[in-house]
Amino acid sequence: MTAEMAEQPGVLAGVLRRAEADAEAIRAVLPHPLAGTMFLARGSSDNAAVFGRYLVELRSGRPAGLMAPSLYTRYHAEVDWSGYLVVALSQSGATPEIVRTCADLRAAGARVIGLTNLPGSPLAQVVDRELLAGAGPERAVPATKTVTAQLALLVTVASALATARPQTGPATSATGDGELAGLCAAVSSVLDDPGPAQRLAAQWQGLDRLIVAGRGLAYAAALETALKIKETTGILAEGISTADLLHGPIATVYAGAPVLLIEGGGPADTDLADLRNLLTARGAEQGGLPVPQGLPETAQVITAVVRGQQLARELALARGADPDAPAHLSKVTATT
Amino acid sequence: MTAEMAEQPGVLAGVLRRAEADAEAIRAVLPHPLAGTMFLARGSSDNAAVFGRYLVELRSGRPAGLMAPSLYTRYHAEVDWSGYLVVALSQSGATPEIVRTCADLRAAGARVIGLTNLPGSPLAQVVDRELLAGAGPERAVPATKTVTAQLALLVTVASALATARPQTGPATSATGDGELAGLCAAVSSVLDDPGPAQRLAAQWQGLDRLIVAGRGLAYAAALETALKIKETTGILAEGISTADLLHGPIATVYAGAPVLLIEGGGPADTDLADLRNLLTARGAEQGGLPVPQGLPETAQVITAVVRGQQLARELALARGADPDAPAHLSKVTATT
Repeated sequence: MTAEMAEQPGVLAGVLRRAEADAEAIRAVLPHPLAGTMFLARGSSDNAAVFGRYLVELRSGRPAGLMAPSLYTRYHAEVDWSGYLVVALSQSGATPEIVRTCADLRAAGARVIGLTNLPGSPLAQVVDRELLAGAGPERAVPATKTVTAQLALLVTVASALATARPQTGPATSATGDGELAGLCAAVSSVLDDPGPAQRLAAQWQGLDRLIVAGRGLAYAAALETALKIKETTGILAEGISTADLLHGPIATVYAGAPVLLIEGGGPADTDLADLRNLLTARGAEQGGLPVPQGLPETAQVITAVVRGQQLARELALARGADPDAPAHLSKVTATT
Repeated sequence: MTAEMAEQPGVLAGVLRRAEADAEAIRAVLPHPLAGTMFLARGSSDNAAVFGRYLVELRSGRPAGLMAPSLYTRYHAEVDWSGYLVVALSQSGATPEIVRTCADLRAAGARVIGLTNLPGSPLAQVVDRELLAGAGPERAVPATKTVTAQLALLVTVASALATARPQTGPATSATGDGELAGLCAAVSSVLDDPGPAQRLAAQWQGLDRLIVAGRGLAYAAALETALKIKETTGILAEGISTADLLHGPIATVYAGAPVLLIEGGGPADTDLADLRNLLTARGAEQGGLPVPQGLPETAQVITAVVRGQQLARELALARGADPDAPAHLSKVTATT
């Protein structure tokens, strides 16, 4: 996990180098007019899909959402997908339910893009266009470099949709070309500075539960950080939007049952300031991890995901567990 | 909470009596052709929206999804919503972000239906059609009768969309008229039989974490049961799809967090059998609650939600807490 995390600046640089060619390939398969975009994924890929879902609705100017694969694999739904772009994410390209659902949706009229890390996977056979993460083999069970590569690829997908948008009005929050220019350096600087994650891990090593909260694009980083912590440590870490947290789940946050707050650097961070005041007033425990400031929101959120990987690894090490090979988990999960 | 839970058979009977008129009102505002349906909600209403999301995609024959309100309240997204039906759910009809987002989406071309329990609420002013739960005043902080009423109303919404579907082929899993005929009796029989929930609460009263899992329509019942337990007890109960559970989070179950399995009575229950075998082989703790058998899936899932309410109440009582007024929570959560 440590070695694969360290490869991230190089992997991300590769994604950025290919961004223009990838965007061109995406534009070639888009439906016109676009009815909407739906994301199809599980696990870490599904957390990346949450990031893509926000970004694509913002930039494509049409609604976006997350799919429920069981509607196809269990309920055999008959749905007209004409006009839709489907973005399927699977690091292995081999999760049976993802491959099978892609085939069903394409037959039902969807245009399908597959984001994967393995060229020539079963997923490649059932999509209109395959986009590769180019992250190289990933052997640790917790996915790291393939996840940040997917996130950067999703920025490419959103940019391609933004330029294909019918009325090119003032695109909302579309930072545009070069928004990830500072990403590789920011990820490198975080990787070179494990101290904050080590200190928080030392403080929280005895935990058995944790809430991880963020809003907007940072919600995806909260979900991914929570999943990494679950996988490496067995701590029940639940990722949640700060707005949802206030609708009841805040009852689970108190002294000894902490919340980790994720800053995205975007317009939803105003919620975090209010939440901090509320938690302080209640005597509830809260933590955070610093990320380089001044980046566009997309780059900051990807950097926050790397901070979350560090915390998961450090928590595992502090608890005497092996972050590379958590008990009972395997690298490819073959849900159907 | 106990008194309001007991009102559910009568409230549900009222929803069923109004179903035909409500369906007619919904059909009058549907967009033609339908591009897709999106649900807008928070908290318990958002769990009901998950149920609606599955059912509407199945029966309308067009994609459905859940909205991210922060795209409108924080990012000020400029999105073309023409062709979309938006179903907004808010028991109070007063959550500022729901009301404001409805107004934005309608101005951007969406047809909007509002499901609420309070006639003349702010939500009613910004929708094309208001549908009322008719559950009467709800005073306990954990929402119960308003949630099951919303679920039954969502069956009406899905039925209205099924009959408006262009090609009336063999509608997938659309049980059709009268599918909730046995619901009121089933809910009554569960309310008259608190024993199973009391026994499980006695066994689990010392818990501080729990996974609640289900798939397909039952995933909504898993989310709602987890939220009720969080609210009434402060236990960190995470609701999750059985397929997502296998992609990493199962590590928390192997580490000692028990899992409550929710049966929906539908085609996704095959996953539960596999999961039970896996958990048994690994010595992980699992529990379940019986519901009346032989009901259509929609009715069984609503009945399972009532079982979840019972467990949340019994856990609170067993821990010496007041389920009606959990510490630090208020009835209306005014997220923006």
